[in-house]
Amino acid sequence: MKFPRTHTLKEIAEILGTKYVGAEDFPVLGMNEIHVVEPGDIVFVDHPKYYDKALQSKATIVLINKDVECPEGKALLISDDPFRDFNTLTKHFRPFQSTNSAISSTAKIGKDTIIQPNVFIGNNVVIGKNCLIHANVSIYDDCIIGDNVIIHSGTVLGSDAFYYKNRPTGFDKLISGGRVIIEDNVDIGASCSVDRGVTGDTTIGEGTKLDNQIQIGHDTAIGKKCLIASHTGIAGCVVIEDEVTLWGQVGVISGITIGKGATVYAQSGVGGSLEGGKAYFGSPAGEARSKMKELAMIKNIPFLMEKIKDK
Amino acid sequence: MKFPRTHTLKEIAEILGTKYVGAEDFPVLGMNEIHVVEPGDIVFVDHPKYYDKALQSKATIVLINKDVECPEGKALLISDDPFRDFNTLTKHFRPFQSTNSAISSTAKIGKDTIIQPNVFIGNNVVIGKNCLIHANVSIYDDCIIGDNVIIHSGTVLGSDAFYYKNRPTGFDKLISGGRVIIEDNVDIGASCSVDRGVTGDTTIGEGTKLDNQIQIGHDTAIGKKCLIASHTGIAGCVVIEDEVTLWGQVGVISGITIGKGATVYAQSGVGGSLEGGKAYFGSPAGEARSKMKELAMIKNIPFLMEKIKDK
Amino acid sequence: MKFPRTHTLKEIAEILGTKYVGAEDFPVLGMNEIHVVEPGDIVFVDHPKYYDKALQSKATIVLINKDVECPEGKALLISDDPFRDFNTLTKHFRPFQSTNSAISSTAKIGKDTIIQPNVFIGNNVVIGKNCLIHANVSIYDDCIIGDNVIIHSGTVLGSDAFYYKNRPTGFDKLISGGRVIIEDNVDIGASCSVDRGVTGDTTIGEGTKLDNQIQIGHDTAIGKKCLIASHTGIAGCVVIEDEVTLWGQVGVISGITIGKGATVYAQSGVGGSLEGGKAYFGSPAGEARSKMKELAMIKNIPFLMEKIKDK
Repeated sequence: MKFPRTHTLKEIAEILGTKYVGAEDFPVLGMNEIHVVEPGDIVFVDHPKYYDKALQSKATIVLINKDVECPEGKALLISDDPFRDFNTLTKHFRPFQSTNSAISSTAKIGKDTIIQPNVFIGNNVVIGKNCLIHANVSIYDDCIIGDNVIIHSGTVLGSDAFYYKNRPTGFDKLISGGRVIIEDNVDIGASCSVDRGVTGDTTIGEGTKLDNQIQIGHDTAIGKKCLIASHTGIAGCVVIEDEVTLWGQVGVISGITIGKGATVYAQSGVGGSLEGGKAYFGSPAGEARSKMKELAMIKNIPFLMEKIKDK
Repeated sequence: MKFPRTHTLKEIAEILGTKYVGAEDFPVLGMNEIHVVEPGDIVFVDHPKYYDKALQSKATIVLINKDVECPEGKALLISDDPFRDFNTLTKHFRPFQSTNSAISSTAKIGKDTIIQPNVFIGNNVVIGKNCLIHANVSIYDDCIIGDNVIIHSGTVLGSDAFYYKNRPTGFDKLISGGRVIIEDNVDIGASCSVDRGVTGDTTIGEGTKLDNQIQIGHDTAIGKKCLIASHTGIAGCVVIEDEVTLWGQVGVISGITIGKGATVYAQSGVGGSLEGGKAYFGSPAGEARSKMKELAMIKNIPFLMEKIKDK
Repeated sequence: MKFPRTHTLKEIAEILGTKYVGAEDFPVLGMNEIHVVEPGDIVFVDHPKYYDKALQSKATIVLINKDVECPEGKALLISDDPFRDFNTLTKHFRPFQSTNSAISSTAKIGKDTIIQPNVFIGNNVVIGKNCLIHANVSIYDDCIIGDNVIIHSGTVLGSDAFYYKNRPTGFDKLISGGRVIIEDNVDIGASCSVDRGVTGDTTIGEGTKLDNQIQIGHDTAIGKKCLIASHTGIAGCVVIEDEVTLWGQVGVISGITIGKGATVYAQSGVGGSLEGGKAYFGSPAGEARSKMKELAMIKNIPFLMEKIKDK
């Protein structure tokens, strides 16, 4: 997430009421989570285990709960609660704004795009040309949709990340300020849900087709020309490369990568990254051919029991 | 379900056109299903197998299809079809009322609560303070929602129980007159569905967080501070105790209890009650560590086959 | 799909700009996919592997990409791209028409039917008597709904088939021009999706009851008095015969038949046709009793390993 203009380190520290280490005019361009940071970004870290990772990331401003040594060319924001302060920044730069009309006056809708009745389109949404948005679709603030996109009824784009910190007082939500990006020629079926990124984007690549009732988590990037069948659930921060096929009721754990051209058969549970170009099956998923052979082997156990008895 | 005022046995018998056994002014306070009955309630029973259970329950009025001996301190309503007559009472005391405006004039909405466009809020709904109800949410009659609750688009609260009696003429629906109760600080993701209780309540406890596309059946009680991931389905009359975590695409059969602090891994199928404090996996689900060991064992079958061949 | 009036072969050829083989007044009554064709229908075929099947089907007009010999009593439309030209015909005879009001003026709604707020009802929809359509339901063009039908919030009837041709330029969609037919006394839960047929109908039979979050693919025919539990997904072109029970989170592959009175237990994956009157379990599903025995056998592997070691 980039801020509308460049801020200084001092300005950000004043928003948060925190101390800072670095030049007061050190430039701050935006904020992001560790897996998508770029120079100019603030990243937050609140556990000693991850201090080094955050300090050595591409982020140039580290929001941290210890007065550590500041790396060369970087700046620090010292906070007693970086998680809370990261949320404060999200709320400051991407405040939730209620919408009085079902289609926000700040939404931009391209030529020849059809919006059916009872659709909700939030603030700053951009929809391209020649799209068809069916009835009762909900498109939250800041979503970006390309050309020739079809979205079926009941689908929700831009709901919050399912991301909480477990505090003694209860689950504390990491506020979502990111976006959903739908590229050109994508079809999305009925009653799908696509969560926005926390600070980055959740993306569905050009020409990809989604069936009904699919769930896609925050900050997940789906490549071009993928096919995803009904009831498949993909967690957050997943990378699905181009031309991947996921059949029905597949589950994909967070943070992994499925390589280009891979196929995952129905009801499989993907618990780790998968190499491209191959077919997978099972829960947990393995290469389809060996997994199927393995499962067929179960039928041999009675024979083995019989044989053993004879010995 | 409590009635708006106390009725007499005679009044209820007149609504139903049935005979009764007991004092004509025997007090009737409400009606409930066997698992949630209290003194003053009507319970119904139409199968000899369950007569004793109903007659010995806490309910003090038994709607029954046989002229049995009336237990001390109780009353009977004798009906040729207790299921039909129970439905008659539900329709009498909780008649479905269509709503002409999208937000019923009888709904009460708390201070600083934001209702986004295209939301439906039915009759007698109560929503607390500081909630955010996103676009295209549907909240049926009589639902009660606490403070600081977030509900994402497409979610449905208060749909009917999936509960039918198989008659020669077809499935006969047990009419739902219960409620959905959402306690404070609950988040509900996009496109979830929570069925109302048949006569009692379906409850989601304080601080619990639901991801997207989750299904929760009638009369189910979910504890405080639970985490439930996407595409998980929980059947009716389930008890999920506090601080339970259910990962994605888990299925839970009706009528069971999952103990406090239990964790169920993704795609597991819970077919019986689970003790608290442990981790579970598989379909049917067992303790995670032994279940995973068990599944890993399958890889040994080819070795066993080879060994046996040698003998 | 029947056309509003009978056309001549020449008229159709002019719409498509193709050559034709046969009498110029050869009658054309409609168009259909291979599995539902009738005399008078156009069928399309673009792969030599399926030429014979199409030419020998009940369809009397074959839209084909080779100048083959025309079977007796039939006619041909010779096209360089039958898939594209079939789509051209669907767009010609069933053009998508946007709807300005949430309930189309061409929809017919029966006596005593209640339509709750924020419902979308498309063009030419017919709804019978005494139905209850809850808030935020979406019913696309041309759907036909019987009497005494209940549809819960968030449900979508008539979304497009998930059906694409893989072209070098991307996935090319087979346009859906078929319908959804819901017979009398059907209940449909919250947030279900039922795709329309490509040219034929997707049908849910009399007295069948659907729980929440269910997905039903294009051209699938569900029989009478079936019970289908939550999160079950049924692919396209499936036949579910009468009185079938599918428990929760079941997946059913496309093109197969589940016989009358069969029961499929929760989380099963149906990968082939199933005989009626039996119970099934597992992924892939087998007869429940033997499948459960088979799975229980896995527990014996450690014993076998121990025994083998001793030898």
